[in-house]
Order: sequence, then structure tokens, then C-alpha cells
Amino acid sequence: MRRAFDIGKELDGDFIVETDTGLRWHRERFRVLYADTDKAGVVYHANYLKYFEIGRAGLIRASGRSYKEIEALGLFHPIVDLRVQYESYADYDDELAVYARPSEIAPVKFGYSYVVRHDGDARVVAHGYTVHCCIDTAHKVLPVDEVTQAIFKDFGVTR
Amino acid sequence: MRRAFDIGKELDGDFIVETDTGLRWHRERFRVLYADTDKAGVVYHANYLKYFEIGRAGLIRASGRSYKEIEALGLFHPIVDLRVQYESYADYDDELAVYARPSEIAPVKFGYSYVVRHDGDARVVAHGYTVHCCIDTAHKVLPVDEVTQAIFKDFGVTR
Amino acid sequence: MRRAFDIGKELDGDFIVETDTGLRWHRERFRVLYADTDKAGVVYHANYLKYFEIGRAGLIRASGRSYKEIEALGLFHPIVDLRVQYESYADYDDELAVYARPSEIAPVKFGYSYVVRHDGDARVVAHGYTVHCCIDTAHKVLPVDEVTQAIFKDFGVTR
Amino acid sequence: MRRAFDIGKELDGDFIVETDTGLRWHRERFRVLYADTDKAGVVYHANYLKYFEIGRAGLIRASGRSYKEIEALGLFHPIVDLRVQYESYADYDDELAVYARPSEIAPVKFGYSYVVRHDGDARVVAHGYTVHCCIDTAHKVLPVDEVTQAIFKDFGVTR
Repeated sequence: MRRAFDIGKELDGDFIVETDTGLRWHRERFRVLYADTDKAGVVYHANYLKYFEIGRAGLIRASGRSYKEIEALGLFHPIVDLRVQYESYADYDDELAVYARPSEIAPVKFGYSYVVRHDGDARVVAHGYTVHCCIDTAHKVLPVDEVTQAIFKDFGVTR
Repeated sequence: MRRAFDIGKELDGDFIVETDTGLRWHRERFRVLYADTDKAGVVYHANYLKYFEIGRAGLIRASGRSYKEIEALGLFHPIVDLRVQYESYADYDDELAVYARPSEIAPVKFGYSYVVRHDGDARVVAHGYTVHCCIDTAHKVLPVDEVTQAIFKDFGVTR
Repeated sequence: MRRAFDIGKELDGDFIVETDTGLRWHRERFRVLYADTDKAGVVYHANYLKYFEIGRAGLIRASGRSYKEIEALGLFHPIVDLRVQYESYADYDDELAVYARPSEIAPVKFGYSYVVRHDGDARVVAHGYTVHCCIDTAHKVLPVDEVTQAIFKDFGVTR
Repeated sequence: MRRAFDIGKELDGDFIVETDTGLRWHRERFRVLYADTDKAGVVYHANYLKYFEIGRAGLIRASGRSYKEIEALGLFHPIVDLRVQYESYADYDDELAVYARPSEIAPVKFGYSYVVRHDGDARVVAHGYTVHCCIDTAHKVLPVDEVTQAIFKDFGVTR
């Protein structure tokens, strides 16, 4: 079953409202590199995870923080689970946008959702999620840090 | 919940039997490149999809065919769905093995399962799946090709 | 010996003039992804070739054409020679700019030069060149196409 | 002008002797991944630097050391200069070999040479070099470490 993704209102700071759900997403635009393609002539599937990273970093930055600052506190957010579903494909030089928003938070994990789309085309190229935990430099799992809790709270996503 | 992966009997052609399930998997060994790591000092999460590709190509080759031959027939197997779950991490220069096997087949899609592990260490680093469809050069979805059906049948995975 | 790169006048369309040489370069800004880093904590050396690609594509686009259009004519511009010299390093999330310009053109090959720098910091991170030839879909070498000749002529680079 | 590369005597430990020069090279075999290709249907140029890394790591390992051990001493070998020249191209699933050997050593830098070839085909796909320096964790340049000096001495490459 297809994932519809119609964009309604445009908000400041490259945030948008999804028509069907009323949910707020952050948008980050980028262009497909030749390096991202494979011999089938389209974007190699694994590269969508880089696009998700672009979306996640953009969302955190638009929230007034940066993942770099979180790491400067001695914290890391490794991915423990991810999924990507592909509904279409993207070509070299296509202008795409990745939409990202916090999806869930629990005591020791939290997740982001993503949608990748062409501009002005409600057709979704790919969508998915990443689930992260919070660890220190010794790989010890910690409660979700306060910076992340605050970002998620801005989106109304709380435990 | 952790995914246990104990290796029992070793079969010819780098196939092995998983102890708990009795299932047959194909094993492909490789070494982590510096290029695969990120500034957290471990393998960047998206690179496990390359390891899954190594596993999938190795399995097809061990079955006496190759994905290159399938494409020479004008067919492609794009991924429509994938998931990776991470239970541990891998360092630069680690010797890893990716275990792959067919998991499901339907009229117009088919899936592989994967486990990535250190040798001699039942601890799983990552596991997951990819689901593919079969298309022609015009991106038209076709029934699963006979080469793939035959590979899956060898593993007892039929519609 | 260090490569100085001071930026003088800013021109329309993200072109700039290099102070010392008076040469015109095109600038394309981007941000370092986590995916681009390695376990030394800096950008993995091979990824500068992706940054060069960003610079080259941006230059062609700013010249009113696109590499995609060139390929649509059945032409490819494979690299036959490249060099990268590294003078410093870049971290995750750094805002970098790649400066690109045509450097030389001959009957069957042509080259671009690149400089990667932090904004507002005359210190060069890396610089280098790529040399390309022009081939058709059968890998036959052709004279340099007219689109490329026109781009190079705009920069005063002719045979 | 083409770079000939004929392989003469095969030595233990995957070392070979180049016919024309009498030089000893280390060989590391690998297979081209789908992830390595681009929409031109061949290996994306930047990925040859990963193949060079495979060659360099294999050479160091065959010399009884590992780059991982060198880093465990708090030392890094960043690349300060590299060049790749392409004479042909490689397809998905091709079996390639990368040949590597030390080329030069000076008080504060050292270089490796590489040739990438198909098995049983004297035609060179790509060749090039990387030049490295030796730094500590504070990015301070140090004299070339003794481990590297010993590896280079094994190949008759001394200051």
C-alpha cells in the first residue's frame, strides 16, 4: 500500500505541515550525485540512509542544536533499528527533499521518521525510520539525553 | 531481545547449518575497510547494506548462478523493503562473516535474510532482511524469474 | 609548499575571483556528513572526489547546462587522470565550499581544477584536478563535445 | 602512454614479480560490488581509492604487521597526496586484483604505488599512488615510524 505525502502549509525555518495527518515535518533539499547512482541508473538503495542522515541533522539544526554538540558532551546516538521502504526511484541530478520528524521516545531509545520525495510531486520515493539509543564513549547505554528530549518535546513527542 | 546465531555443521561450498533452527545459510567472509568506518570509530550503519549485498551475491553465486546473469536477461531485482537491526558494532580491520538465505517468495516479490557476525563469536553484530521485486528495463514489475525461483527452491522456500 | 587561496570579488551566480591570480571560480557550498568521516575523526580522503563532483556539477549548471543533458546526447565524460593534495582536514558538520574552474582543453581531453576550503578561512583543505575524455555509449573516444567547449570558452580556456 | 603490467614469477604469500621491472608487488583479489558502480555501468572513479586501501592494508598485513596496530600506538598515516590514472574500466562482479608496493620514503613522508588489473589480462584498469605522513592524535607531524620503515626496508625502499 502506498504512502501518500501531501504537503499543506509551509512554516518558517523549512518546516511544513503534512495535509492528511496535520503533522509537522522538517524539510531538507539536496541533489542526487553521480556517486549515489548504481549501474541500474538510479540511486543505490543504501544511499537513502545518507539522505535520512541529511534529514535528521537538518531537523536537529533547525531545532537550534546540532548532533556535533551532543557528541561534544561525550554522547553518541547509534542506530539500533532502521527500515526503508521504496515506492519509486530517483535519477542522477534529481532535486529531492527529505522530510524528517521525531516519531517516538522511550526511556532508553528514540526514533525518527523520514519521507523522501521529489518537489511538487506527491509521489513518495522512499520512507522509513531509524531508532537510536544514547551511549557514552565506553558504549554504555544511558537514558535519552535532555537535548534530544527537548527536541522531541518541541514536536509533541514525549514518553 | 537478542538474536542468537550459533553455527552447527559446516557444509560444502561455505554453507553452514544454524544450530537452533536447523536452517542452512551461506557464509561470505570479508574484512572491514577504513572507508567503512565513521568518526564514532565503528562501521557506519549504512555500510551493513553493502555487507548484505556481499552475502546475497555470494549466495546466488554458490547456487551456481550470478546476479550479473540475471541482469543480462534484462531483469533487475530492486529492493522494495529492507530492515537492519544492530546488536553490537564492528571495528576497522575486523574479520566478519555475513550469512544469507532466502526467506520468502510470493508471486511478485521475494526476500533474503542476513546475519553479520564475528568468526567464532555467537554474538550477532547486525541482522536484517531485504525484499525485492523483479522488473524489466522499463521498470515494469514482472513475476519472479525462474532463476530466482530455482535458487529459493534449493533452500526449500517456495510459494 | 602551501596553496594559498584568497577570495577577492564576489560575482553573480556564486562565482568568485581569486585574489592572487585574478582567476574566476565557481563556488558550491555543502556540509560534511557523518557518512563522510572515518575513524580518524575526519573526512575520509576518497570523499573529496565527491566534493569535486559537487563542484564540477555546480560549475556546469551555473554555466547554463547540466551533465545530465550531456549524457542525454549519448556522451560520457569519464575521468582518465585525477590528483588530490591535502593540506589540512575537515570535521563532521563543517561547512565547506568547493571552488571549481576549467583548467585545460585539448582535442580529446579536458580538465577541471578544484579547491576545497572552509568559509572565511584562507587555509586550503584540499586541492586537485580531474582530467576527462569524451566517449560514446560504445566507449569510443570522441573529440571534446561542443557543450564542454562552450563552457571552457566562457572561462577563457581554449585549445 | 599505457602502463604495461605483466606478471612473472609468483612468490609465497600472494607476492608476485613484475616482468618488465623485476619489482616485487603484493596482490589482493576482490570482486566489484553493485554499490561500487555508477549509472555509466562501471566502477565510480572514487572507489578505486578503496581498492588502493585494500591493496595497502593487504601489503602491510602480508608484511606481518597491520595498520590497526600502528594506530594502536597513537599514530595515523593520513594521505597528503594521491593520483589515479585510468586506462580502462571495470564492470559489476568483475574479479579484480590490486597490486601494491612501497615506492618512496623520506624523513616525514612515504608513498605506495598501486596497479588494478583483471586476472590473466595484462591490460591495466587503473594505477596510481598515495603519499602519507605520520601524525599523532594531536595532528602533529612525526618522523616516519619504525614499523613503516621496516616494511619499506623489506622491499628495498629506504631513505
